[in-house]
Amino acid sequence: MRRSLYREDYMKRKNRLSVLLNSREMKAFSLYCSRYRIKNRSEFMRTTIMKAIISKFDEEHPTLWEEPSPTLFKQ
Amino acid sequence: MRRSLYREDYMKRKNRLSVLLNSREMKAFSLYCSRYRIKNRSEFMRTTIMKAIISKFDEEHPTLWEEPSPTLFKQ
Repeated sequence: MRRSLYREDYMKRKNRLSVLLNSREMKAFSLYCSRYRIKNRSEFMRTTIMKAIISKFDEEHPTLWEEPSPTLFKQ
Repeated sequence: MRRSLYREDYMKRKNRLSVLLNSREMKAFSLYCSRYRIKNRSEFMRTTIMKAIISKFDEEHPTLWEEPSPTLFKQ
């Protein structure tokens, strides 16, 4: 019980970040949201940012090999 | 003079959007910012979001042709 409470608390989104857009950027953003039927703008921004971060970490993870990833056939 | 004032006003970032992150997401975001020396987090989020929007619009722009883009050699 204690653990699950802790976990729930850990998963809560408590850190607010804010972005400022000028009217042109805002217009593009609104157009995008209406065209692709994005109801939850915060969700869209969050996933876009997290995707960018994860993909960057993913492509630049440290390896022991010169090649990006060793395979069974080519080490 | 009048026009440039209008233009300046138009370029000002007045639209605030906010994103909420949980502590795990925040940790990843902070790590990313420290690793890639991002001083201006708002700038990073803005460019990431705008890039995503622009690239989506770019790849899905309407054409008159079936092919994605006609060339001189193949129409």
